[in-house]
Amino acid sequence: MNGAEALMRTLADGGVEVVFTNPGTTELHLVGALDAVPQLRGVLALFEGVVTGAADGYARIAGKPAATLLHLGPGLAYGLTNLHNSRRANSPVVNLVGDHPTYHNAFDPALASDIAALGGWLRGPVRRPENAAGAGTDAAAALAGAVESPGQIATVIVPADVSWSDGGVVAEPMTSKPAPPVAQDVLTQVAEVIRSGDPVALVIGGPALREAGLCAASRIAAATGVRVLQELYSNRVEHGAGLPTFPRLGFYPDQALEQLAGVRHVITAGAKAPVSFFAYSDKPSCLVPEDAATHVLAEVGQDAVAALTQLADLVAPDVAADVVEPRRPALPTGPLTLQSWCDVVAALLPERAIVIDESVSSGVALADATSGAPRHDVLMQTGGAMGDGMPLAVGAAVAAPDRPVVALISDGCAMYTVAALWTQAREKLNVTTVILDNRSYAILRQEWKYYSRRPGAGDPDSNPLFDLADPAIDFVRLAESFGVPATRATTAEELAEQFSNALSEPGPHLIQAVVPPAA
Amino acid sequence: MNGAEALMRTLADGGVEVVFTNPGTTELHLVGALDAVPQLRGVLALFEGVVTGAADGYARIAGKPAATLLHLGPGLAYGLTNLHNSRRANSPVVNLVGDHPTYHNAFDPALASDIAALGGWLRGPVRRPENAAGAGTDAAAALAGAVESPGQIATVIVPADVSWSDGGVVAEPMTSKPAPPVAQDVLTQVAEVIRSGDPVALVIGGPALREAGLCAASRIAAATGVRVLQELYSNRVEHGAGLPTFPRLGFYPDQALEQLAGVRHVITAGAKAPVSFFAYSDKPSCLVPEDAATHVLAEVGQDAVAALTQLADLVAPDVAADVVEPRRPALPTGPLTLQSWCDVVAALLPERAIVIDESVSSGVALADATSGAPRHDVLMQTGGAMGDGMPLAVGAAVAAPDRPVVALISDGCAMYTVAALWTQAREKLNVTTVILDNRSYAILRQEWKYYSRRPGAGDPDSNPLFDLADPAIDFVRLAESFGVPATRATTAEELAEQFSNALSEPGPHLIQAVVPPAA
Repeated sequence: MNGAEALMRTLADGGVEVVFTNPGTTELHLVGALDAVPQLRGVLALFEGVVTGAADGYARIAGKPAATLLHLGPGLAYGLTNLHNSRRANSPVVNLVGDHPTYHNAFDPALASDIAALGGWLRGPVRRPENAAGAGTDAAAALAGAVESPGQIATVIVPADVSWSDGGVVAEPMTSKPAPPVAQDVLTQVAEVIRSGDPVALVIGGPALREAGLCAASRIAAATGVRVLQELYSNRVEHGAGLPTFPRLGFYPDQALEQLAGVRHVITAGAKAPVSFFAYSDKPSCLVPEDAATHVLAEVGQDAVAALTQLADLVAPDVAADVVEPRRPALPTGPLTLQSWCDVVAALLPERAIVIDESVSSGVALADATSGAPRHDVLMQTGGAMGDGMPLAVGAAVAAPDRPVVALISDGCAMYTVAALWTQAREKLNVTTVILDNRSYAILRQEWKYYSRRPGAGDPDSNPLFDLADPAIDFVRLAESFGVPATRATTAEELAEQFSNALSEPGPHLIQAVVPPAA
Repeated sequence: MNGAEALMRTLADGGVEVVFTNPGTTELHLVGALDAVPQLRGVLALFEGVVTGAADGYARIAGKPAATLLHLGPGLAYGLTNLHNSRRANSPVVNLVGDHPTYHNAFDPALASDIAALGGWLRGPVRRPENAAGAGTDAAAALAGAVESPGQIATVIVPADVSWSDGGVVAEPMTSKPAPPVAQDVLTQVAEVIRSGDPVALVIGGPALREAGLCAASRIAAATGVRVLQELYSNRVEHGAGLPTFPRLGFYPDQALEQLAGVRHVITAGAKAPVSFFAYSDKPSCLVPEDAATHVLAEVGQDAVAALTQLADLVAPDVAADVVEPRRPALPTGPLTLQSWCDVVAALLPERAIVIDESVSSGVALADATSGAPRHDVLMQTGGAMGDGMPLAVGAAVAAPDRPVVALISDGCAMYTVAALWTQAREKLNVTTVILDNRSYAILRQEWKYYSRRPGAGDPDSNPLFDLADPAIDFVRLAESFGVPATRATTAEELAEQFSNALSEPGPHLIQAVVPPAA
């Protein structure tokens, strides 16, 4: 068995089922091995940003990593930005990067580069087997590293001669440590803080944003008056009827400072202490009020759900969670607004949907509108890098082929990774993409206005660098060019009809929803 | 003056005219400064891979750098792959990467990352001004570093508080050293090698592939029988009637080994010694025959043109260069073949065209077909990373608005950076793109067959990971979605008519040329 096959069999034995890929020559033996291991499914994308974003989406829904298969440093580089988003999502991913054979890089061929530096940028483990015998071991170690709580981006650099040489040995899966528990004295101290009667905010994130964590937080809030806030951008949030819901921390510091005004203690569970997403010359970076203390109930990576549950048992033993009743907005009418498109989605959202939210400035009304819709998962862009949404939809749909995926994508975000539509068509994925088309980088206009020290005297509404209207992108033709049926909606009625139709048919669809830019 | 404006004015004073950008919030003060400096033109792209590839194409044609303006680490990361191609092209580029203010990264906000590590991956200088007063100096130093022969990728990381703070000082342009000359004794030694009567190959690259270098090499060949070979992938090659032309080194080692068979000496001028692009288990990495000696006439970065001219004066004082007479192939007929599409392009290529060649396996007949066409420049993908071609066309057209740009792009390559079409439409660039659509990664099928140790037993023609036919991409709709008029050609007659029409009209056009895959 060659090294490539040993590596692929090791991943399969460790539970990997899917390899998202855009391969090249140095990966051909890995492609051959992928073909030879029936437990593994190769999913082709036309651009590495789609490959890596899909692996992220897969991990968030499947709860385990996919592998990526990428072409040397330049292939990894194209995929790096969505791996940054994955890193910030704490999604486990195993990158397989084919390299020149061990002896060839010394000649500095055109595709040579420092691949390990790119892997290191992602702050996860980087392995490089030296021979075929080590390929399985390094794959097993990378897989164990990827799933180490809270999840990491592991990279295996595979020299082509490691792949093609005989002597490969399939390695046993390594056991990974579970999320470390929170110490009892931390629980006791946090319970005391809550019982002090001081105003307290509890910021929850990561796995605490699923049912058990949300319910525990809700019990604590109901019993003690603690103000619960959801972190700004999350890997996966369970949302909808039958679940508690909490406000998200605001994107702008003024919003978050208002949410936290008057609190004397900020407790974090599975989330970091609130920090301004961007910095502004007259706003603080740290959003915890100056006279408030920060208490970490559960670090990111610790078992925040168990800690919240134990805390709820301490401070709210007989209190039930406060959950949202089923309710949907009425179907709106008239030209699309930033409220009405959200109401259409909320009114028609199917059962067990996976919602990808990369709607940026167009989506501020979404969470409220959908809070009583059928229970669903929301996946967000986590690292601030645009272009994650459409690939996330690919990965989520591959992970859960029986669930409808609804991808809500701003026009600006769509343009980084639009080739994702081709993979959606090729794999017949049940993804309904709604492009929120405001023909601008509205968030930048908004930021420009928000800045207290404005850059130059210009009017952002007339700055051409924020304008996407010339030419206006025809997303219907764009989707059709990739084999995805598409329509355009300018009114709520059109959106409702097209959204219903798209959801009722198998395979991908796209709707270009023309919306006004956010103020 | 704030730091951002000092930085932009410094670049403008240093001769920079164009800033290709996909900006974000941390760049807003730089966007404001760009607006305030009338010598600078901002060109928006929807994806950073287009931004960086355009800067590469601009540099190759303008002979001086453009700047890029990119959004923190993730923005640079999206642009990194085409910067790898730029690095391998020795194109000068100045990256401006907006960062959080100096104090904000300590809070590890979502977009924070090790930007310097990405800049370092490109092996060029990385600067990071600490305050507004240093922004101009660092910009001047980066610009000088970028243009240092043979050209580098310089990166300036600009913290937002450096941009927004007052106290900016415009810095004087730094003088850059010219390409170092070749020592007289090297010239003498190489002349002796040539006069020895042994079989000699002369491999030329970089600036030596323009008229002066080509003519000098031709004189040497005519007088001495030296076998001249052109490096495999080049920044810019002058080609066509009135110029000497030489065979390119083969992509596959067997081809190059045959080209070099029997030589006892390999002389390099502006090129590296021949190395196999990929490595194969039964082929050497170094393609210089084992019993041949390598002599460096001019290192990459040295003044190879002067050295070749001096060498020609030594060994061929009275010999003229052998140039190609004007001749064009007859217009072919019938279904498109890998020969006939090249003949159509050669038959109709306008005067002073800039040809972008990213046709990969579909374009092997191109150089011969166009050798007697009107003189033109050819820009190639240099780093082996697909997706450079369409952005190169953007940059070339911005640099030379009076010249027709003809971009010959394989379907696979087109899908990494297709948003380049939008910038072509927005800027009304005179780019005629011909997509060579064989609906496959034909080069990977070819490589699979070429490998002496085949990966697994599978048939590459049936491996779905090399197949782009399901669904077939409709490049006509794709182009139209970005505002670029487009047509489809399946015969030579159709291609000829559409190519003529496209060239006769201003602005961008795209032709989807359906071709058979290379064997």
